[in-house]
Amino acid sequence: MKNILIIGCGLLGSSLLRSISKKRIAKKIFVYEKSKYNIAKIKKLKLPGTIVKSLKYGVVNSDLIIFCTPMSEYKKLILKINNLISSKTLITDIGSSKIETSKIIDKFLNKGIQWIQSHPIAGSEVSGPEHGKDNMFEDKWCIIIKNKNTVNHNLNRLIKFWKKIGSKVVVMPAEKHDKIFSITSHLPHLIAYNLVKSAQDFEKKESYELIKYSAGGLRDFSRIAASNEIMWRDIFFNNKKNISKAIDLFIKNLNQFKKDIISKNNKSILKKLIQTKKVRSRIIKLKQDIDKPDFGRN
Amino acid sequence: MKNILIIGCGLLGSSLLRSISKKRIAKKIFVYEKSKYNIAKIKKLKLPGTIVKSLKYGVVNSDLIIFCTPMSEYKKLILKINNLISSKTLITDIGSSKIETSKIIDKFLNKGIQWIQSHPIAGSEVSGPEHGKDNMFEDKWCIIIKNKNTVNHNLNRLIKFWKKIGSKVVVMPAEKHDKIFSITSHLPHLIAYNLVKSAQDFEKKESYELIKYSAGGLRDFSRIAASNEIMWRDIFFNNKKNISKAIDLFIKNLNQFKKDIISKNNKSILKKLIQTKKVRSRIIKLKQDIDKPDFGRN
Repeated sequence: MKNILIIGCGLLGSSLLRSISKKRIAKKIFVYEKSKYNIAKIKKLKLPGTIVKSLKYGVVNSDLIIFCTPMSEYKKLILKINNLISSKTLITDIGSSKIETSKIIDKFLNKGIQWIQSHPIAGSEVSGPEHGKDNMFEDKWCIIIKNKNTVNHNLNRLIKFWKKIGSKVVVMPAEKHDKIFSITSHLPHLIAYNLVKSAQDFEKKESYELIKYSAGGLRDFSRIAASNEIMWRDIFFNNKKNISKAIDLFIKNLNQFKKDIISKNNKSILKKLIQTKKVRSRIIKLKQDIDKPDFGRN
Repeated sequence: MKNILIIGCGLLGSSLLRSISKKRIAKKIFVYEKSKYNIAKIKKLKLPGTIVKSLKYGVVNSDLIIFCTPMSEYKKLILKINNLISSKTLITDIGSSKIETSKIIDKFLNKGIQWIQSHPIAGSEVSGPEHGKDNMFEDKWCIIIKNKNTVNHNLNRLIKFWKKIGSKVVVMPAEKHDKIFSITSHLPHLIAYNLVKSAQDFEKKESYELIKYSAGGLRDFSRIAASNEIMWRDIFFNNKKNISKAIDLFIKNLNQFKKDIISKNNKSILKKLIQTKKVRSRIIKLKQDIDKPDFGRN
Protein backbone atom coordinates (compact mmCIF):
# COMPACT_ATOMS: atom_id res chain seq x y z
CA MET A 1 0.00 0.00 0.00
CA LYS A 2 1.16 3.51 -0.65
CA ASN A 3 -1.44 5.71 1.02
CA ILE A 4 -4.24 4.72 3.34
CA LEU A 5 -7.35 6.67 4.33
CA ILE A 6 -9.07 5.87 7.60
CA ILE A 7 -12.63 7.13 7.77
CA GLY A 8 -13.77 7.39 11.39
CA CYS A 9 -11.12 7.51 14.05
CA GLY A 10 -12.64 6.04 17.22
CA LEU A 11 -11.39 3.06 19.18
CA LEU A 12 -10.70 0.80 16.19
CA GLY A 13 -9.90 3.49 13.62
CA SER A 14 -7.28 5.00 15.90
CA SER A 15 -5.90 1.54 16.69
CA LEU A 16 -5.45 0.89 12.97
CA LEU A 17 -3.87 4.30 12.61
CA ARG A 18 -1.38 3.52 15.36
CA SER A 19 -0.64 0.06 14.00
CA ILE A 20 -0.22 1.13 10.36
CA SER A 21 2.13 3.87 11.49
CA LYS A 22 4.15 1.72 13.88
CA LYS A 23 4.58 -1.05 11.31
CA ARG A 24 5.26 1.45 8.49
CA ILE A 25 2.67 -0.15 6.27
CA ALA A 26 1.76 3.04 4.37
CA LYS A 27 3.65 5.93 2.89
CA LYS A 28 0.97 8.35 4.04
CA ILE A 29 -1.98 7.87 6.35
CA PHE A 30 -4.96 10.16 6.06
CA VAL A 31 -7.64 10.40 8.69
CA TYR A 32 -11.14 11.65 8.06
CA GLU A 33 -13.19 12.20 11.17
CA LYS A 34 -16.42 14.17 11.36
CA SER A 35 -16.51 14.64 15.12
CA LYS A 36 -14.75 17.81 16.24
CA TYR A 37 -14.51 16.34 19.69
CA ASN A 38 -12.59 13.33 18.37
CA ILE A 39 -10.37 15.54 16.19
CA ALA A 40 -9.39 17.55 19.26
CA LYS A 41 -8.53 14.35 21.08
CA ILE A 42 -6.49 13.00 18.14
CA LYS A 43 -4.49 16.24 18.07
CA LYS A 44 -3.96 16.24 21.79
CA LEU A 45 -2.78 12.63 21.67
CA LYS A 46 -0.43 13.56 18.80
CA LEU A 47 -1.51 10.51 16.86
CA PRO A 48 0.34 9.84 13.60
CA GLY A 49 -1.15 10.56 10.16
CA THR A 50 -2.71 13.59 8.56
CA ILE A 51 -6.19 14.73 9.43
CA VAL A 52 -7.94 15.69 6.20
CA LYS A 53 -10.79 18.16 6.33
CA SER A 54 -11.83 17.27 2.81
CA LEU A 55 -13.02 13.72 2.28
CA LYS A 56 -12.25 14.20 -1.41
CA TYR A 57 -8.58 14.89 -0.78
CA GLY A 58 -8.24 11.70 1.25
CA VAL A 59 -10.13 9.58 -1.23
CA VAL A 60 -8.35 10.62 -4.41
CA ASN A 61 -4.93 10.26 -2.84
CA SER A 62 -5.37 6.82 -1.25
CA ASP A 63 -4.85 3.26 -2.44
CA LEU A 64 -6.76 1.75 0.44
CA ILE A 65 -9.77 3.23 2.23
CA ILE A 66 -10.88 1.73 5.53
CA PHE A 67 -14.34 2.54 6.85
CA CYS A 68 -14.19 2.59 10.67
CA THR A 69 -17.50 4.38 11.22
CA PRO A 70 -20.74 2.89 12.51
CA MET A 71 -22.29 0.77 9.75
CA SER A 72 -25.27 3.09 9.52
CA GLU A 73 -22.93 5.73 8.04
CA TYR A 74 -21.81 3.64 5.05
CA LYS A 75 -24.57 4.60 2.62
CA LYS A 76 -24.13 8.34 3.08
CA LEU A 77 -20.38 8.06 2.70
CA ILE A 78 -20.63 5.85 -0.39
CA LEU A 79 -22.81 8.43 -2.08
CA LYS A 80 -20.22 11.10 -1.25
CA ILE A 81 -17.18 9.25 -2.58
CA ASN A 82 -18.72 7.37 -5.53
CA ASN A 83 -17.60 9.86 -8.15
CA LEU A 84 -14.22 10.59 -6.59
CA ILE A 85 -12.83 7.12 -6.37
CA SER A 86 -10.67 5.27 -8.91
CA SER A 87 -11.11 1.58 -9.70
CA LYS A 88 -7.54 1.04 -8.51
CA THR A 89 -8.47 2.01 -4.98
CA LEU A 90 -9.55 -0.76 -2.67
CA ILE A 91 -12.16 -0.17 0.03
CA THR A 92 -12.65 -2.20 3.16
CA ASP A 93 -14.39 -1.78 6.52
CA ILE A 94 -14.37 -3.27 9.97
CA GLY A 95 -18.10 -3.72 10.58
CA SER A 96 -19.34 -6.56 12.77
CA SER A 97 -22.13 -7.84 10.51
CA LYS A 98 -21.88 -8.37 6.78
CA ILE A 99 -24.99 -9.37 4.82
CA GLU A 100 -26.86 -6.07 5.17
CA THR A 101 -23.80 -3.92 4.52
CA SER A 102 -22.96 -6.00 1.44
CA LYS A 103 -26.45 -5.16 0.13
CA ILE A 104 -25.82 -1.44 0.72
CA ILE A 105 -22.48 -1.70 -1.05
CA ASP A 106 -23.99 -3.64 -3.99
CA LYS A 107 -26.81 -1.18 -4.34
CA PHE A 108 -25.02 2.16 -3.93
CA LEU A 109 -21.33 1.79 -4.74
CA ASN A 110 -20.45 2.48 -8.36
CA LYS A 111 -19.79 -0.64 -10.38
CA GLY A 112 -16.14 -1.40 -10.94
CA ILE A 113 -15.07 -0.26 -7.51
CA GLN A 114 -13.92 -3.01 -5.18
CA TRP A 115 -15.05 -3.09 -1.58
CA ILE A 116 -13.98 -6.24 0.21
CA GLN A 117 -15.35 -6.41 3.75
CA SER A 118 -13.20 -7.16 6.79
CA HIS A 119 -14.10 -7.90 10.39
CA PRO A 120 -11.23 -7.87 12.86
CA ILE A 121 -12.35 -9.63 16.06
CA ALA A 122 -11.07 -6.96 18.39
CA GLY A 123 -12.39 -4.12 20.49
CA SER A 124 -13.57 -3.39 23.97
CA GLU A 125 -16.34 -1.69 25.92
CA VAL A 126 -14.75 1.74 25.73
CA SER A 127 -14.97 4.10 22.78
CA GLY A 128 -12.91 6.93 21.36
CA PRO A 129 -9.41 7.47 19.98
CA GLU A 130 -7.87 7.81 23.43
CA HIS A 131 -8.46 4.10 24.06
CA GLY A 132 -6.92 2.83 20.81
CA LYS A 133 -3.81 0.64 20.95
CA ASP A 134 -1.24 -0.23 18.32
CA ASN A 135 -1.45 -3.94 19.20
CA MET A 136 -5.27 -4.10 19.13
CA PHE A 137 -5.29 -6.55 16.20
CA GLU A 138 -2.15 -8.50 17.02
CA ASP A 139 -2.80 -12.27 16.93
CA LYS A 140 -6.52 -11.61 16.61
CA TRP A 141 -8.70 -13.15 13.92
CA CYS A 142 -9.65 -10.99 10.99
CA ILE A 143 -12.49 -12.35 8.87
CA ILE A 144 -12.44 -11.27 5.23
CA ILE A 145 -15.63 -11.69 3.22
CA LYS A 146 -15.43 -13.25 -0.23
CA ASN A 147 -18.35 -13.22 -2.62
CA LYS A 148 -18.87 -13.81 -6.32
CA ASN A 149 -17.62 -10.31 -7.20
CA THR A 150 -14.41 -10.51 -5.21
CA VAL A 151 -11.35 -10.07 -7.43
CA ASN A 152 -8.55 -12.40 -6.29
CA HIS A 153 -5.83 -9.83 -6.78
CA ASN A 154 -7.58 -7.43 -4.41
CA LEU A 155 -8.41 -10.16 -1.94
CA ASN A 156 -4.70 -10.96 -1.75
CA ARG A 157 -3.85 -7.29 -1.23
CA LEU A 158 -6.26 -7.15 1.68
CA ILE A 159 -5.06 -10.41 3.23
CA LYS A 160 -1.51 -9.09 3.01
CA PHE A 161 -2.56 -5.87 4.71
CA TRP A 162 -4.18 -7.56 7.71
CA LYS A 163 -1.28 -9.97 8.06
CA LYS A 164 1.08 -7.02 8.21
CA ILE A 165 -1.13 -5.55 10.94
CA GLY A 166 -0.53 -8.79 12.82
CA SER A 167 -3.90 -10.49 12.45
CA LYS A 168 -4.66 -14.10 11.61
CA VAL A 169 -6.78 -14.02 8.46
CA VAL A 170 -9.65 -16.30 7.51
CA VAL A 171 -11.83 -15.91 4.41
CA MET A 172 -15.51 -16.83 4.39
CA PRO A 173 -18.84 -15.78 2.80
CA ALA A 174 -21.01 -13.14 4.51
CA GLU A 175 -23.74 -15.68 5.31
CA LYS A 176 -21.41 -17.90 7.32
CA HIS A 177 -19.86 -14.90 9.05
CA ASP A 178 -23.20 -13.53 10.17
CA LYS A 179 -24.33 -16.91 11.49
CA ILE A 180 -21.15 -17.52 13.49
CA PHE A 181 -21.04 -14.08 15.04
CA SER A 182 -24.73 -14.07 15.86
CA ILE A 183 -23.81 -16.75 18.38
CA THR A 184 -20.30 -15.86 19.52
CA SER A 185 -20.73 -12.10 19.74
CA HIS A 186 -24.15 -10.63 18.97
CA LEU A 187 -26.20 -12.90 21.24
CA PRO A 188 -23.75 -12.48 24.16
CA HIS A 189 -23.99 -8.70 23.88
CA LEU A 190 -27.76 -8.75 23.59
CA ILE A 191 -28.00 -11.03 26.60
CA ALA A 192 -25.67 -8.85 28.61
CA TYR A 193 -27.77 -5.77 27.85
CA ASN A 194 -30.93 -7.63 28.85
CA LEU A 195 -29.48 -9.07 32.00
CA VAL A 196 -28.39 -5.65 33.19
CA LYS A 197 -31.79 -4.28 32.22
CA SER A 198 -33.51 -7.05 34.21
CA ALA A 199 -31.38 -6.15 37.23
CA GLN A 200 -32.39 -2.51 36.84
CA ASP A 201 -36.07 -3.47 36.55
CA PHE A 202 -35.80 -5.67 39.62
CA GLU A 203 -34.03 -2.97 41.59
CA LYS A 204 -36.79 -0.51 40.81
CA LYS A 205 -39.57 -2.98 41.58
CA GLU A 206 -38.17 -4.17 44.89
CA SER A 207 -36.54 -0.90 45.96
CA TYR A 208 -33.44 -2.90 46.84
CA GLU A 209 -29.99 -1.63 46.23
CA LEU A 210 -28.63 -4.60 44.37
CA ILE A 211 -26.05 -3.28 41.93
CA LYS A 212 -23.66 -2.96 44.84
CA TYR A 213 -23.68 -6.75 45.15
CA SER A 214 -22.80 -7.31 41.51
CA ALA A 215 -19.42 -8.94 42.18
CA GLY A 216 -21.17 -12.32 42.24
CA GLY A 217 -21.57 -12.43 38.47
CA LEU A 218 -23.48 -9.41 37.17
CA ARG A 219 -20.37 -7.24 36.92
CA ASP A 220 -18.95 -9.47 34.15
CA PHE A 221 -22.01 -8.80 32.01
CA SER A 222 -22.01 -5.09 32.78
CA ARG A 223 -18.72 -4.71 30.93
CA ILE A 224 -20.15 -5.91 27.63
CA ALA A 225 -23.40 -4.06 28.30
CA ALA A 226 -21.37 -0.84 28.38
CA SER A 227 -20.35 -1.17 24.72
CA ASN A 228 -21.04 1.59 22.21
CA GLU A 229 -24.77 1.91 21.64
CA ILE A 230 -24.69 3.15 18.03
CA MET A 231 -22.35 0.36 16.94
CA TRP A 232 -24.49 -2.27 18.65
CA ARG A 233 -27.83 -0.93 17.47
CA ASP A 234 -26.46 -1.19 13.92
CA ILE A 235 -25.31 -4.78 14.50
CA PHE A 236 -28.61 -5.86 16.04
CA PHE A 237 -30.63 -4.30 13.20
CA ASN A 238 -28.33 -5.57 10.45
CA ASN A 239 -28.16 -9.16 11.64
CA LYS A 240 -31.68 -9.41 13.02
CA LYS A 241 -32.62 -12.64 11.28
CA ASN A 242 -29.71 -14.66 12.63
CA ILE A 243 -29.92 -13.00 16.01
CA SER A 244 -33.63 -13.78 16.30
CA LYS A 245 -32.88 -17.45 15.64
CA ALA A 246 -30.11 -17.34 18.21
CA ILE A 247 -32.50 -15.81 20.77
CA ASP A 248 -35.02 -18.58 20.09
CA LEU A 249 -32.40 -21.30 20.57
CA PHE A 250 -31.25 -19.63 23.75
CA ILE A 251 -34.76 -19.24 25.20
CA LYS A 252 -35.47 -22.90 24.40
CA ASN A 253 -32.39 -23.92 26.37
CA LEU A 254 -33.24 -21.53 29.18
CA ASN A 255 -36.75 -22.93 29.56
CA GLN A 256 -35.39 -26.48 29.58
CA PHE A 257 -32.90 -25.46 32.27
CA LYS A 258 -35.70 -23.91 34.30
CA LYS A 259 -37.66 -27.16 34.09
CA ASP A 260 -34.58 -29.10 35.22
CA ILE A 261 -34.18 -26.83 38.22
CA ILE A 262 -37.82 -26.98 39.24
CA SER A 263 -37.91 -30.77 38.96
CA LYS A 264 -34.44 -31.01 40.55
CA ASN A 265 -33.18 -33.06 37.62
CA ASN A 266 -29.74 -33.70 39.03
CA LYS A 267 -28.44 -35.79 36.13
CA SER A 268 -29.46 -33.35 33.43
CA ILE A 269 -28.16 -30.26 35.25
CA LEU A 270 -24.81 -31.79 36.15
CA LYS A 271 -24.33 -33.01 32.58
CA LYS A 272 -24.93 -29.49 31.26
CA LEU A 273 -22.68 -27.79 33.81
CA ILE A 274 -19.85 -30.24 33.16
CA GLN A 275 -20.19 -29.90 29.38
CA THR A 276 -20.10 -26.10 29.39
CA LYS A 277 -17.04 -26.12 31.62
CA LYS A 278 -15.10 -27.81 28.82
CA VAL A 279 -15.70 -24.89 26.50
CA ARG A 280 -13.67 -22.63 28.79
CA SER A 281 -10.64 -24.90 28.43
CA ARG A 282 -11.07 -24.94 24.67
CA ILE A 283 -11.27 -21.13 24.56
CA ILE A 284 -8.09 -20.81 26.58
CA LYS A 285 -6.33 -23.45 24.51
CA LEU A 286 -7.34 -21.57 21.36
CA LYS A 287 -5.80 -18.45 22.92
CA GLN A 288 -9.10 -16.58 22.79
CA ASP A 289 -8.78 -15.64 26.47
CA ILE A 290 -6.12 -15.47 29.12
CA ASP A 291 -5.77 -18.47 31.43
CA LYS A 292 -5.70 -16.58 34.73
CA PRO A 293 -8.71 -17.11 37.06
CA ASP A 294 -11.15 -14.19 37.12
CA PHE A 295 -9.50 -12.69 33.99
CA GLY A 296 -6.56 -11.94 36.29
CA ARG A 297 -8.42 -8.90 37.52
CA ASN A 298 -7.83 -9.28 41.24
CA MET B 1 -12.11 -16.58 68.71
CA LYS B 2 -9.82 -19.14 70.20
CA ASN B 3 -10.04 -22.13 67.88
CA ILE B 4 -11.68 -22.35 64.48
CA LEU B 5 -12.66 -25.43 62.50
CA ILE B 6 -12.98 -25.17 58.74
CA ILE B 7 -15.00 -27.99 57.20
CA GLY B 8 -14.19 -28.35 53.53
CA CYS B 9 -10.96 -26.85 52.26
CA GLY B 10 -11.48 -25.96 48.62
CA LEU B 11 -11.15 -22.53 47.04
CA LEU B 12 -12.98 -20.58 49.74
CA GLY B 13 -12.17 -22.82 52.73
CA SER B 14 -8.47 -22.59 51.97
CA SER B 15 -8.76 -18.84 51.44
CA LEU B 16 -10.33 -18.50 54.89
CA LEU B 17 -7.61 -20.72 56.30
CA ARG B 18 -4.91 -18.52 54.80
CA SER B 19 -6.60 -15.32 55.92
CA ILE B 20 -7.33 -16.46 59.50
CA SER B 21 -3.73 -17.57 59.81
CA LYS B 22 -2.21 -14.45 58.29
CA LYS B 23 -4.32 -12.15 60.44
CA ARG B 24 -3.78 -14.31 63.54
CA ILE B 25 -7.49 -14.43 64.23
CA ALA B 26 -7.45 -17.85 65.93
CA LYS B 27 -5.22 -19.62 68.38
CA LYS B 28 -5.62 -22.88 66.51
CA ILE B 29 -7.13 -23.62 63.11
CA PHE B 30 -8.42 -27.09 62.39
CA VAL B 31 -9.20 -28.30 58.91
CA TYR B 32 -11.54 -31.16 58.14
CA GLU B 33 -11.51 -32.25 54.50
CA LYS B 34 -12.92 -35.51 53.22
CA SER B 35 -11.15 -35.53 49.83
CA LYS B 36 -7.79 -37.29 49.99
CA TYR B 37 -6.86 -35.51 46.80
CA ASN B 38 -7.40 -32.12 48.46
CA ILE B 39 -5.57 -33.20 51.63
CA ALA B 40 -2.54 -34.14 49.53
CA LYS B 41 -2.67 -30.72 47.88
CA ILE B 42 -3.01 -28.91 51.23
CA LYS B 43 0.03 -30.73 52.55
CA LYS B 44 2.05 -30.06 49.43
CA LEU B 45 1.13 -26.37 49.61
CA LYS B 46 2.15 -26.37 53.28
CA LEU B 47 -0.98 -24.46 54.21
CA PRO B 48 -1.30 -23.37 57.85
CA GLY B 49 -3.55 -25.10 60.38
CA THR B 50 -3.94 -28.69 61.51
CA ILE B 51 -5.68 -31.26 59.38
CA VAL B 52 -7.92 -33.33 61.64
CA LYS B 53 -8.83 -36.85 60.59
CA SER B 54 -11.59 -36.97 63.19
CA LEU B 55 -14.43 -34.55 62.76
CA LYS B 56 -15.19 -35.03 66.45
CA TYR B 57 -11.79 -33.76 67.50
CA GLY B 58 -12.19 -30.61 65.49
CA VAL B 59 -15.75 -29.97 66.63
CA VAL B 60 -15.24 -30.38 70.37
CA ASN B 61 -12.14 -28.21 70.38
CA SER B 62 -13.46 -25.26 68.36
CA ASP B 63 -15.30 -22.04 69.23
CA LEU B 64 -16.28 -21.33 65.65
CA ILE B 65 -17.08 -23.86 62.94
CA ILE B 66 -17.24 -22.72 59.33
CA PHE B 67 -18.92 -24.94 56.76
CA CYS B 68 -17.14 -24.47 53.43
CA THR B 69 -18.54 -27.57 51.74
CA PRO B 70 -21.19 -27.71 49.01
CA MET B 71 -24.57 -26.94 50.59
CA SER B 72 -25.83 -30.44 49.78
CA GLU B 73 -23.39 -31.75 52.42
CA TYR B 74 -24.82 -29.75 55.33
CA LYS B 75 -27.50 -32.21 56.45
CA LYS B 76 -25.14 -35.20 56.64
CA LEU B 77 -22.60 -33.16 58.56
CA ILE B 78 -25.17 -31.73 60.97
CA LEU B 79 -26.30 -35.23 61.86
CA LYS B 80 -22.68 -36.18 62.52
CA ILE B 81 -21.85 -33.25 64.80
CA ASN B 82 -25.18 -32.73 66.58
CA ASN B 83 -24.24 -34.65 69.67
CA LEU B 84 -20.65 -33.44 69.79
CA ILE B 85 -21.19 -29.74 69.80
CA SER B 86 -21.53 -27.40 72.75
CA SER B 87 -23.98 -24.51 72.87
CA LYS B 88 -21.02 -22.16 73.25
CA THR B 89 -19.76 -23.04 69.81
CA LEU B 90 -20.95 -20.89 66.95
CA ILE B 91 -21.49 -22.34 63.49
CA THR B 92 -21.50 -20.46 60.23
CA ASP B 93 -21.20 -21.28 56.54
CA ILE B 94 -20.40 -19.57 53.28
CA GLY B 95 -23.22 -20.94 51.10
CA SER B 96 -24.60 -18.82 48.27
CA SER B 97 -28.30 -19.33 48.94
CA LYS B 98 -29.97 -19.18 52.33
CA ILE B 99 -33.68 -20.07 52.64
CA GLU B 100 -33.35 -23.79 51.92
CA THR B 101 -30.25 -24.24 54.06
CA SER B 102 -31.93 -22.39 56.92
CA LYS B 103 -34.74 -24.98 56.70
CA ILE B 104 -32.19 -27.82 56.88
CA ILE B 105 -30.54 -26.17 59.87
CA ASP B 106 -33.88 -25.58 61.63
CA LYS B 107 -34.98 -29.13 61.02
CA PHE B 108 -31.84 -31.10 61.82
CA LEU B 109 -29.56 -29.08 64.08
CA ASN B 110 -30.09 -29.69 67.78
CA LYS B 111 -31.97 -26.89 69.50
CA GLY B 112 -29.81 -24.51 71.45
CA ILE B 113 -26.96 -24.59 68.98
CA GLN B 114 -26.42 -21.35 67.06
CA TRP B 115 -25.79 -21.42 63.34
CA ILE B 116 -25.74 -17.95 61.83
CA GLN B 117 -25.35 -18.05 58.08
CA SER B 118 -22.77 -16.00 56.15
CA HIS B 119 -22.28 -15.37 52.48
CA PRO B 120 -19.04 -13.71 51.48
CA ILE B 121 -19.36 -12.37 47.93
CA ALA B 122 -16.09 -13.77 46.69
CA GLY B 123 -14.84 -16.64 44.59
CA SER B 124 -13.87 -17.43 41.05
CA GLU B 125 -14.33 -20.02 38.32
CA VAL B 126 -11.52 -22.24 39.59
CA SER B 127 -11.82 -24.77 42.41
CA GLY B 128 -9.47 -26.38 44.90
CA PRO B 129 -7.15 -25.29 47.72
CA GLU B 130 -4.34 -24.42 45.30
CA HIS B 131 -6.30 -21.43 44.04
CA GLY B 132 -7.13 -19.97 47.47
CA LYS B 133 -5.77 -16.54 48.39
CA ASP B 134 -5.36 -14.85 51.75
CA ASN B 135 -6.94 -11.64 50.42
CA MET B 136 -9.96 -13.36 48.85
CA PHE B 137 -12.43 -11.58 51.18
CA GLU B 138 -10.63 -8.28 51.54
CA ASP B 139 -12.95 -5.33 50.91
CA LYS B 140 -15.63 -7.74 49.70
CA TRP B 141 -19.21 -7.80 50.99
CA CYS B 142 -20.13 -10.46 53.47
CA ILE B 143 -23.86 -10.92 54.00
CA ILE B 144 -24.85 -12.25 57.41
CA ILE B 145 -28.34 -13.69 57.81
CA LYS B 146 -30.41 -12.64 60.78
CA ASN B 147 -33.66 -14.36 61.68
CA LYS B 148 -35.93 -14.56 64.73
CA ASN B 149 -33.64 -17.08 66.43
CA THR B 150 -30.45 -15.11 66.02
CA VAL B 151 -28.85 -14.25 69.35
CA ASN B 152 -27.36 -10.75 69.25
CA HIS B 153 -24.25 -11.70 71.15
CA ASN B 154 -23.43 -14.37 68.58
CA LEU B 155 -24.31 -12.11 65.69
CA ASN B 156 -21.79 -9.60 67.00
CA ARG B 157 -19.15 -12.31 67.35
CA LEU B 158 -19.67 -13.25 63.71
CA ILE B 159 -19.66 -9.67 62.46
CA LYS B 160 -16.42 -9.10 64.30
CA PHE B 161 -14.93 -12.21 62.74
CA TRP B 162 -15.71 -11.18 59.16
CA LYS B 163 -14.50 -7.64 59.79
CA LYS B 164 -11.21 -9.03 61.01
CA ILE B 165 -11.02 -11.07 57.80
CA GLY B 166 -11.31 -7.74 55.97
CA SER B 167 -14.88 -7.95 54.69
CA LYS B 168 -17.57 -5.28 54.68
CA VAL B 169 -20.48 -6.75 56.60
CA VAL B 170 -24.18 -6.29 55.95
CA VAL B 171 -26.98 -8.05 57.84
CA MET B 172 -30.26 -9.04 56.20
CA PRO B 173 -32.95 -11.74 56.31
CA ALA B 174 -32.61 -14.90 54.18
CA GLU B 175 -35.58 -13.93 51.98
CA LYS B 176 -34.02 -10.64 50.93
CA HIS B 177 -30.64 -12.29 50.40
CA ASP B 178 -32.04 -14.97 48.12
CA LYS B 179 -33.96 -12.43 46.05
CA ILE B 180 -30.99 -10.12 45.56
CA PHE B 181 -28.57 -12.86 44.62
CA SER B 182 -31.04 -14.58 42.32
CA ILE B 183 -30.55 -11.51 40.12
CA THR B 184 -26.94 -10.43 40.71
CA SER B 185 -25.37 -13.86 40.79
CA HIS B 186 -27.59 -16.89 40.19
CA LEU B 187 -29.28 -15.64 37.01
CA PRO B 188 -25.96 -14.48 35.49
CA HIS B 189 -24.43 -17.91 36.09
CA LEU B 190 -27.45 -19.73 34.74
CA ILE B 191 -27.45 -17.51 31.67
CA ALA B 192 -23.76 -18.03 31.11
CA TYR B 193 -24.20 -21.80 31.26
CA ASN B 194 -27.08 -21.61 28.81
CA LEU B 195 -25.31 -19.29 26.42
CA VAL B 196 -22.31 -21.57 26.23
CA LYS B 197 -24.66 -24.54 25.79
CA SER B 198 -26.46 -22.73 22.96
CA ALA B 199 -23.10 -22.12 21.27
CA GLN B 200 -22.28 -25.81 21.60
CA ASP B 201 -25.67 -26.80 20.17
CA PHE B 202 -25.21 -24.40 17.27
CA GLU B 203 -21.71 -25.65 16.56
CA LYS B 204 -22.98 -29.22 16.38
CA LYS B 205 -25.95 -28.33 14.20
CA GLU B 206 -24.04 -26.22 11.70
CA SER B 207 -20.75 -28.13 11.84
CA TYR B 208 -18.98 -24.80 12.13
CA GLU B 209 -15.99 -24.28 14.33
CA LEU B 210 -17.18 -21.29 16.23
CA ILE B 211 -15.62 -21.47 19.66
CA LYS B 212 -12.40 -20.24 18.10
CA TYR B 213 -14.12 -16.94 17.37
CA SER B 214 -15.28 -16.45 20.94
CA ALA B 215 -13.19 -13.32 21.60
CA GLY B 216 -16.15 -11.22 20.41
CA GLY B 217 -18.12 -11.79 23.62
CA LEU B 218 -18.68 -15.48 24.29
CA ARG B 219 -15.38 -15.86 26.11
CA ASP B 220 -16.57 -13.58 28.93
CA PHE B 221 -19.49 -15.90 29.63
CA SER B 222 -17.37 -19.02 29.38
CA ARG B 223 -15.46 -17.98 32.49
CA ILE B 224 -18.54 -18.02 34.69
CA ALA B 225 -19.84 -21.13 32.91
CA ALA B 226 -16.69 -22.92 34.09
CA SER B 227 -17.63 -22.58 37.75
CA ASN B 228 -17.90 -25.60 40.04
CA GLU B 229 -20.84 -27.75 38.99
CA ILE B 230 -21.72 -29.20 42.41
CA MET B 231 -21.76 -25.79 44.05
CA TRP B 232 -23.93 -24.35 41.31
CA ARG B 233 -26.33 -27.27 41.09
CA ASP B 234 -26.93 -26.79 44.82
CA ILE B 235 -27.54 -23.06 44.39
CA PHE B 236 -29.94 -23.54 41.46
CA PHE B 237 -31.92 -26.20 43.33
CA ASN B 238 -31.97 -24.30 46.63
CA ASN B 239 -33.07 -20.98 45.21
CA LYS B 240 -35.28 -22.33 42.44
CA LYS B 241 -38.32 -20.18 43.19
CA ASN B 242 -36.52 -16.85 43.02
CA ILE B 243 -34.41 -18.00 40.09
CA SER B 244 -37.51 -19.10 38.16
CA LYS B 245 -38.99 -15.64 38.63
CA ALA B 246 -35.73 -14.08 37.52
CA ILE B 247 -35.69 -16.26 34.40
CA ASP B 248 -39.25 -15.17 33.59
CA LEU B 249 -38.37 -11.47 33.97
CA PHE B 250 -35.31 -11.99 31.80
CA ILE B 251 -37.19 -13.86 29.05
CA LYS B 252 -39.84 -11.12 29.03
CA ASN B 253 -37.14 -8.51 28.47
CA LEU B 254 -35.42 -10.66 25.86
CA ASN B 255 -38.61 -11.11 23.85
CA GLN B 256 -39.28 -7.37 23.99
CA PHE B 257 -35.74 -6.73 22.78
CA LYS B 258 -36.26 -9.21 19.94
CA LYS B 259 -39.43 -7.35 18.91
CA ASP B 260 -37.53 -4.04 18.99
CA ILE B 261 -34.84 -5.46 16.74
CA ILE B 262 -37.26 -6.99 14.24
CA SER B 263 -39.29 -3.77 14.01
CA LYS B 264 -36.06 -1.68 14.03
CA ASN B 265 -37.34 0.35 16.96
CA ASN B 266 -34.43 2.77 17.08
CA LYS B 267 -35.67 4.84 20.00
CA SER B 268 -36.43 1.91 22.28
CA ILE B 269 -33.17 0.08 21.57
CA LEU B 270 -30.97 3.16 22.01
CA LYS B 271 -32.72 4.00 25.28
CA LYS B 272 -32.04 0.52 26.61
CA LEU B 273 -28.41 0.45 25.49
CA ILE B 274 -27.72 3.87 27.00
CA GLN B 275 -29.43 2.95 30.28
CA THR B 276 -27.52 -0.30 30.76
CA LYS B 277 -24.24 1.46 30.07
CA LYS B 278 -24.78 3.55 33.19
CA VAL B 279 -24.81 0.45 35.37
CA ARG B 280 -21.20 -0.28 34.43
CA SER B 281 -20.13 3.13 35.78
CA ARG B 282 -22.09 2.52 38.98
CA ILE B 283 -20.44 -0.88 39.45
CA ILE B 284 -17.00 0.60 39.02
CA LYS B 285 -17.82 3.51 41.32
CA LEU B 286 -19.04 1.02 43.92
CA LYS B 287 -15.67 -0.75 43.54
CA GLN B 288 -17.33 -3.98 42.48
CA ASP B 289 -15.07 -4.22 39.44
CA ILE B 290 -11.81 -2.74 38.21
CA ASP B 291 -12.00 0.28 35.94
CA LYS B 292 -9.63 -0.94 33.23
CA PRO B 293 -11.18 -1.64 29.83
CA ASP B 294 -11.62 -5.35 29.04
CA PHE B 295 -10.97 -6.22 32.73
CA GLY B 296 -7.38 -5.18 32.01
CA ARG B 297 -6.77 -8.58 30.49
CA ASN B 298 -4.96 -7.53 27.33
